[in-house]
Amino acid sequence: MSTTKPPAGTRDFLPDEIRRREHVINIVRSVYERYGFEPLETPAFENIETLLGKYGDEGNKLIFKILRRGEHEASGEADLALRYDLTVPLARVIAQYQNELPKFFKRYQIQPVWRADRPARGRFREFYQCDIDSIGSTSAVVEVEQLSAVSDVLTELGFKDFQLRINHRGVLDAMLERAGIEPAERANALVIIDKQDKIGRQGVFDQLQAKYGNKAAAECMSPIHATSLADSLLAVTGLPAGSPKENLELILNLASSTAAATFLRLDTSLARGLSYYTGAIMEVNVEGIGSLGGGGRYNNLIGTFLGRGIPACGFSLGLERIIVIMTERNMFPSEVVRGAVDVMVTLWNEETRADALALAAELRRADLRVDVYPEAEKLGKQFKYAATRAVPFVVVVGVDERAADNVSIKNLASSDQQTVPRAEAAGWIKRHLNEEPGSRQVEP
Amino acid sequence: MSTTKPPAGTRDFLPDEIRRREHVINIVRSVYERYGFEPLETPAFENIETLLGKYGDEGNKLIFKILRRGEHEASGEADLALRYDLTVPLARVIAQYQNELPKFFKRYQIQPVWRADRPARGRFREFYQCDIDSIGSTSAVVEVEQLSAVSDVLTELGFKDFQLRINHRGVLDAMLERAGIEPAERANALVIIDKQDKIGRQGVFDQLQAKYGNKAAAECMSPIHATSLADSLLAVTGLPAGSPKENLELILNLASSTAAATFLRLDTSLARGLSYYTGAIMEVNVEGIGSLGGGGRYNNLIGTFLGRGIPACGFSLGLERIIVIMTERNMFPSEVVRGAVDVMVTLWNEETRADALALAAELRRADLRVDVYPEAEKLGKQFKYAATRAVPFVVVVGVDERAADNVSIKNLASSDQQTVPRAEAAGWIKRHLNEEPGSRQVEP
Repeated sequence: MSTTKPPAGTRDFLPDEIRRREHVINIVRSVYERYGFEPLETPAFENIETLLGKYGDEGNKLIFKILRRGEHEASGEADLALRYDLTVPLARVIAQYQNELPKFFKRYQIQPVWRADRPARGRFREFYQCDIDSIGSTSAVVEVEQLSAVSDVLTELGFKDFQLRINHRGVLDAMLERAGIEPAERANALVIIDKQDKIGRQGVFDQLQAKYGNKAAAECMSPIHATSLADSLLAVTGLPAGSPKENLELILNLASSTAAATFLRLDTSLARGLSYYTGAIMEVNVEGIGSLGGGGRYNNLIGTFLGRGIPACGFSLGLERIIVIMTERNMFPSEVVRGAVDVMVTLWNEETRADALALAAELRRADLRVDVYPEAEKLGKQFKYAATRAVPFVVVVGVDERAADNVSIKNLASSDQQTVPRAEAAGWIKRHLNEEPGSRQVEP
Repeated sequence: MSTTKPPAGTRDFLPDEIRRREHVINIVRSVYERYGFEPLETPAFENIETLLGKYGDEGNKLIFKILRRGEHEASGEADLALRYDLTVPLARVIAQYQNELPKFFKRYQIQPVWRADRPARGRFREFYQCDIDSIGSTSAVVEVEQLSAVSDVLTELGFKDFQLRINHRGVLDAMLERAGIEPAERANALVIIDKQDKIGRQGVFDQLQAKYGNKAAAECMSPIHATSLADSLLAVTGLPAGSPKENLELILNLASSTAAATFLRLDTSLARGLSYYTGAIMEVNVEGIGSLGGGGRYNNLIGTFLGRGIPACGFSLGLERIIVIMTERNMFPSEVVRGAVDVMVTLWNEETRADALALAAELRRADLRVDVYPEAEKLGKQFKYAATRAVPFVVVVGVDERAADNVSIKNLASSDQQTVPRAEAAGWIKRHLNEEPGSRQVEP
């Protein structure tokens, strides 16, 4: 018999885990909708030429490629490939539907992506990204709205100790120029600078020094790590004059009227690996944990599909990291993890099955989540089953109850049992569900 | 430049389409949760040996296979394959987590599957299935709860003209036996009988006659097409004695206490193609349209992963068909198709951008969906843009309004314009949104 585990680097999500994921996704979605972003979804796979060459040599190797089918299967060639991120498919969509989409297109997209990375703790081959992108405007309002939306998402999820770091591609370029690093070598230097989270400041310095010498390394160790927005506004004045400085200044100024004000800081050591950024770059970090996501302005990428440049700016949150931290920190409201069923209807005997189903229908009409025990087994066994599933209430309709048109309702946590007229059962259960600590609120 | 279309047989879902899909998925999900089903998700791909051999020779050819990676890529071999349905992954999950899952495991799963079918109108290579399955009980309560849940889903979506047809694998076997068709040939005969929707009764008869002779064909043209549940209960008494008859009788009897009562009929011509069914088989049809989904009892499939039999029964709804019909019939509530934004804040000039962002934040705090026009262009242009996006209200804060701490709110449909104290703007917009025909209801 073959293995029953999911493939390496992927996971099955059992119900408790899905409820956690849905809780996060619902908050992300509702905040992004409040900011006017609209949903978009693209196919799991793309034509292979859409993806190849977009993520560098390393990326090309990590793309999952799909074998041609039918008579071509034996050729061993691939013609399709699994989505590697949500940005390249977006660029293709913008090019394809340019006449149907609004001039300023703001979309969110929450879908899995696949990368053939070596699986490791916390690193998966199938993982969800939650992206927002604003297409069509160069205005700093775009960056500020995204920073504010991300602040609202994290705040509503319950995070308090996060920072939004911002830098500008132009600031990095000027720094590398001063350090005397050749343009062709700058992408590599940025990859080293970007490692500060992993190897620390000294590690970054050592690697830069080994590769580019002492002076260049010192020049690359950026001096500005502001600790507040006010501090950032002071620090930004020290940058050399030019459009990066003006752009950062404007973003910081506008952000002070938004939810991002508390969290935003200028940090000129922020590099972000991806080479397609052309302006502001942004990242969200949680104290002692690292990055939960990031993004920036990329005014040229869409042009590679469209043939003419369209300005764009995006921010991507990683769902998996957020869920790991929220689970470790017990940040999920108790109703999220409470279970799937509000009340279980027991089967008294084989003859009363139809009546149990009718009672379940009555309770469901009141929007309760109702399970019916499928077998007419001993009541004790039915109760025990309900307890293992953390069902709060169990309903029994025995001979006496039926005669008087009553039901018995047992609270499994307290073992209290109460007889209630059948017509009032749904209302009774709803009231008492709302009294339970950590219950989901049910409209009475 | 390469094509910007999605791959053949797949689709990009733009915002309006996603809102339709989410409307359907939300109803499906909430009904299934009311019936005590819990969510499950599995990876997009499985180890290839998990899928091969589960869907017959034809199915094997339609599975998308993923090339091995790294040094093995050149071998042209596949080690992974895209999910082909939601049932085989479920069987693997049951085997893998048997000690963590409840004795009676009821799960719903709403995820895409991929099949390399020749693309055609209404037939896609990437499409969503919405499955419920109940594992661990042979009780007829299982079938009845599923029939009732499917009835509630379709009723809440707005369907009235659907029928739930039911038959039993044992009834079909007895019929084929009487027709003198050898056991090895019966699967083929069922495939022909299953075509009635496509080629009509006469077509089925002709094909059966050509292959098995006149007498066998006549024997296979089932006489029972009941037209109501009461009719079905009468007709079922005519079936030969035995467990299929008793099982059908019990299901029909129990269903009369549930939401399925209006829609359920016995139809002994129902065959369902899949060979793994062992008991009741079910299908939901819409008048003049055909099948929206179906299912049945399969007590042996999970055993192929687990090594011991576990009873199971499932029902699968096809999302794509449902959405096509609901779109053709205009069955979506108008708030679903109304658009993404409740109110757009205009930019008066460059200097007031920060104030526009602050106003947007105030409106969002009241749970409104707010867009900010990103550029300080002429107001007329900003209004025109809002109109193309079907935004109902636009807010302007000019010099006079700012001085008096007011805002001007324009209703784009009626062109009415109103000046309102800024602190009351959110409440004013919410009240008027609720008055709009087909508005989404916003808590005041």
